[in-house]
Amino acid sequence: MTPWNQVTIVGTGLIGGSLGLALKRAGLARNVVGVGHRRSTLDRALACGAVDDATLDPAEGVRGSDLVVLATAVGLFESLLRRAADHLADGAVVIDVGSTKAEVVRTAEALVPPGRAFVGCHPIAGSEKRGIAWADADLFDGAACAVTPTDRTPADALGRVVETWEALGMRVVRLSPAEHDRLLAEVSHLPHLAAAALVRAVSPEAEGLVGTGWTDTTRIAASAPALWRDILLTNADGVAAALARFRETLADLEDALADRDGEGIERLLAEAKARRDRIVGE
Amino acid sequence: MTPWNQVTIVGTGLIGGSLGLALKRAGLARNVVGVGHRRSTLDRALACGAVDDATLDPAEGVRGSDLVVLATAVGLFESLLRRAADHLADGAVVIDVGSTKAEVVRTAEALVPPGRAFVGCHPIAGSEKRGIAWADADLFDGAACAVTPTDRTPADALGRVVETWEALGMRVVRLSPAEHDRLLAEVSHLPHLAAAALVRAVSPEAEGLVGTGWTDTTRIAASAPALWRDILLTNADGVAAALARFRETLADLEDALADRDGEGIERLLAEAKARRDRIVGE
Repeated sequence: MTPWNQVTIVGTGLIGGSLGLALKRAGLARNVVGVGHRRSTLDRALACGAVDDATLDPAEGVRGSDLVVLATAVGLFESLLRRAADHLADGAVVIDVGSTKAEVVRTAEALVPPGRAFVGCHPIAGSEKRGIAWADADLFDGAACAVTPTDRTPADALGRVVETWEALGMRVVRLSPAEHDRLLAEVSHLPHLAAAALVRAVSPEAEGLVGTGWTDTTRIAASAPALWRDILLTNADGVAAALARFRETLADLEDALADRDGEGIERLLAEAKARRDRIVGE
Repeated sequence: MTPWNQVTIVGTGLIGGSLGLALKRAGLARNVVGVGHRRSTLDRALACGAVDDATLDPAEGVRGSDLVVLATAVGLFESLLRRAADHLADGAVVIDVGSTKAEVVRTAEALVPPGRAFVGCHPIAGSEKRGIAWADADLFDGAACAVTPTDRTPADALGRVVETWEALGMRVVRLSPAEHDRLLAEVSHLPHLAAAALVRAVSPEAEGLVGTGWTDTTRIAASAPALWRDILLTNADGVAAALARFRETLADLEDALADRDGEGIERLLAEAKARRDRIVGE
């Protein structure tokens, strides 16, 4: 594909930094501008080559760019867009990489001015780690990326955005913003709540008895609390629905256990194993 | 420590096979006998050096051994001990490596004849993988091992068993069988139920959207269903108590979400993160 002339990445943390590295390595961006709220982070992004230029000012940062990527916590998108909207170049495409989409897309479409396009995106890649220190040009390769166009999304902008993710090795899945949030509640937001609740279920005396099973099951409970507060708040209904399904299965297991129903327990476990083996391709 | 003269490992799967490799590498066993119910498994255990001799007959397998390790599914211990008890050498020490202890210890203490000792053990090491093909001499190194003596456990047998686990690099934690089961329900059995229920919460349309977070959180749902049926059934009350604590936290999170209580959600997530970071030493 034709590379973007200038890409602005607002928020050069794990995802933003990795995206800068990946775009540059793939030759998809001639110039990358980083926007941050801490000079030290921008200096590290410059030092590791994730960005070519850097500024603390979103308005200045988006000037002249044909692609602008919102890669901060979801809760900051609105104020950032308000500050930068009037400075977006004619024809600029704005995308985000946030973990929820309905509220984000609604807000962004209201703020991005005529002649500029917004395309909601969610590359399903990352880790519980935070910050530019963990940036990795390979982060996106082989993972899924949800793209959530609406009837207001220009087809050409959508096409270029899809091409960009695919050029980074991602499998693009097109979903409506609402559908995205319903499904991501199941595979991402609910597991975060479950991981946090599993940590809380541990008595102090049990802390020395954790093994690798526990460590893996709770790994995402080490994610940044403020990021996840935003994600959960912007998808509260989707998460509530997923939680309800989850609690139903827990109740089934609890009943089977109370009845000492070995066959029933084994069936539930075997179904889960077969399903997971299939999903992860084992 | 003085090595065991002959160690019999009943069940040469992931744990039994790894134990054979580890004991031999550390020079803790002069001879290792494997007992299995499939010739092919025993042949692989012989081929990889996890055992020196092998038999399908538990009675023959334990003859002349000063250490006998039960390393099959917990549900098989009773029938194996019934077949082997009369053939245990005078002074032999019998241990198990099962994931629950109260029922196991009660059963084993009733079946192990006078002049032979039983010491309940639970090396907290393993994986969702099964079988001798995954055996690994390093499996135990650095992990915790619960040892659950009772007032019937001879001090010398207990001492030698603790020394053996420590010589394999394990951190031995002494607990009563009941305490073990209560605590393991929290750090192991509950996470297994949660992982299975998380898999079940996924809609078919969401299957293509899983990322590494989901894959790690649900990894243990790929464990062997029959093994886990036994574990859950032999600790049904402990698991029910842990489930109750877990559901309380889920309800707190659900309430905070319904109230759009961002501060409350962030506090719960931050507490879980701080606790987990401390537990895993990050």
